[in-house]
Amino acid sequence: MNPKDNKQTASHSSPVCVHNPHLDSLKDDILYHFSLGTNTHNLPAMFGDVKFVCVGGSPWRMKSFIEYIAAELCMEDPKSEYPNICAGTDRYAMYKVGPVLSVSHGMGIPSIAIMLHELIKLLHHAHCTDVTIIRIGTSGGIGLEPGTVVVTKQSVDATFLPKFEQVILGKTVVRNTDLDQSLALELLQCSNELNQFETVLGNTMCTLDFYEGQGRLDGAFCSYTEKDKQEYLNKANQAGVCNIEMESSVFAAMCKLSGLRAAVVCVTLLDRLKGDQLSSSHEVLHNYQQRPQILVGHYIKKHLNANAVRS
Amino acid sequence: MNPKDNKQTASHSSPVCVHNPHLDSLKDDILYHFSLGTNTHNLPAMFGDVKFVCVGGSPWRMKSFIEYIAAELCMEDPKSEYPNICAGTDRYAMYKVGPVLSVSHGMGIPSIAIMLHELIKLLHHAHCTDVTIIRIGTSGGIGLEPGTVVVTKQSVDATFLPKFEQVILGKTVVRNTDLDQSLALELLQCSNELNQFETVLGNTMCTLDFYEGQGRLDGAFCSYTEKDKQEYLNKANQAGVCNIEMESSVFAAMCKLSGLRAAVVCVTLLDRLKGDQLSSSHEVLHNYQQRPQILVGHYIKKHLNANAVRS
Repeated sequence: MNPKDNKQTASHSSPVCVHNPHLDSLKDDILYHFSLGTNTHNLPAMFGDVKFVCVGGSPWRMKSFIEYIAAELCMEDPKSEYPNICAGTDRYAMYKVGPVLSVSHGMGIPSIAIMLHELIKLLHHAHCTDVTIIRIGTSGGIGLEPGTVVVTKQSVDATFLPKFEQVILGKTVVRNTDLDQSLALELLQCSNELNQFETVLGNTMCTLDFYEGQGRLDGAFCSYTEKDKQEYLNKANQAGVCNIEMESSVFAAMCKLSGLRAAVVCVTLLDRLKGDQLSSSHEVLHNYQQRPQILVGHYIKKHLNANAVRS
Repeated sequence: MNPKDNKQTASHSSPVCVHNPHLDSLKDDILYHFSLGTNTHNLPAMFGDVKFVCVGGSPWRMKSFIEYIAAELCMEDPKSEYPNICAGTDRYAMYKVGPVLSVSHGMGIPSIAIMLHELIKLLHHAHCTDVTIIRIGTSGGIGLEPGTVVVTKQSVDATFLPKFEQVILGKTVVRNTDLDQSLALELLQCSNELNQFETVLGNTMCTLDFYEGQGRLDGAFCSYTEKDKQEYLNKANQAGVCNIEMESSVFAAMCKLSGLRAAVVCVTLLDRLKGDQLSSSHEVLHNYQQRPQILVGHYIKKHLNANAVRS
């Protein structure tokens, strides 16, 4: 690569944007729920090379992802386990191998939102550029064979509209839930290349609740009938909803605001038209949960290989 | 106690109610996020004696609470650690000593709601009666010295109204967030007896977000000024709000629906009128976080001693 190319690349690099004038006046920015901070940690040295961030609800799954990706990228360290970078707290777990960061976010919009605020500030403080972020999760499918992977086209709310309502100082602000369409198509292409499991592109409904909010009949409370449930899920399906989970809307909204290239890749653990309980065996569910990891692992490997060839 | 008394007590005992006719037709009820189920576990044998349930966000804190309560009740087992009853999953952690159950719930309304659906079903399947449930948490205070403990009078939303909006099949249902007032007063009395830290009775604002939702100036995004923030927090304070957290409204609503006697006891980690960042030392914050545990520990001990005297 000659210096001119280098300069061009630099001028096209895309930073991770915060939109908060108050941050400049903070002497120390404490990322409380990560147990990290700008005065206590050298964030550019620790995270400056990050290009791919994968997030998911379960800390165990995010640890298993980093082990998987390390093996895929031949970056295993035979001498050591992968340390939890957020070992000072039990709110989230974070692991890193080369340019890949793996972070857990717990369950639900509020939990992932806290994590994303602090992750976006972390990537900003670390001067990261051209970062791609992918949520790898689990979900309930609608009319799909269990184990099918859904790459989200649009994240919609419980009324099937592509929006996220953020309450700010008691007032509701509506935010866009667009995801990166070219990234979604690239991920679909990766699944074709792998040819290991079914992957579809579709809308994902994001709810604030797992039981009543998703029309389940097996919660502690249920005031509707099986027929009401089927009607609701069929209406969702007619609006293009392929699966239901609990984090994609705020994930899409916050990533868009900060200029992160974002995608949501969730496996369906069951077909909600046929039931509500997760009664498949542990082994089957474990196999399903690995599918988004395998897909995203392939995507990352492909990109790193392409970049290695270019440079 | 003569048989007549026994019968009277039984007739006055209060069960844990589910409101879901579909549950009766389930052959097996899998409490997926606890990794427990009615076919795989003898829930009445495991949990039938539970009288007090304490819940809090952090799994580490809920483990430390069970260790603390075991020592307080002289029920320590010198031979063993307290095993995590939900060891098969990393979604929640659960510990038990005698009649006391300690369960983590993660951060935010959706996360605690999943836990409560499964906890209410668990207590119901175990035939528990007369259960008291207390959330012991952390919060941001308004105009209070950091370390002050707030016992919640009413849980209010971001517009200071005592309601929780539950979306069911795409439609919003408003639920009451009343907590047990006699329990709140008993807890206040316990704090007077202990005389170790300040405790107040006040309203608690429950938000869906930690940063913009609570008017913080240190998130990745902030579109308002310090003056806007102060105005909002002062309005909240005028409406009786003493502290802000992220779970109390759905906790109050679900416990009321299921007939659980419920209270919320949160320590304030900082005064939000003076700042947003949690910059106190680890030791100071740790000390603060123990206060709800000490208060609730005293309450449980007092009740068990009184019951022992009665019987």
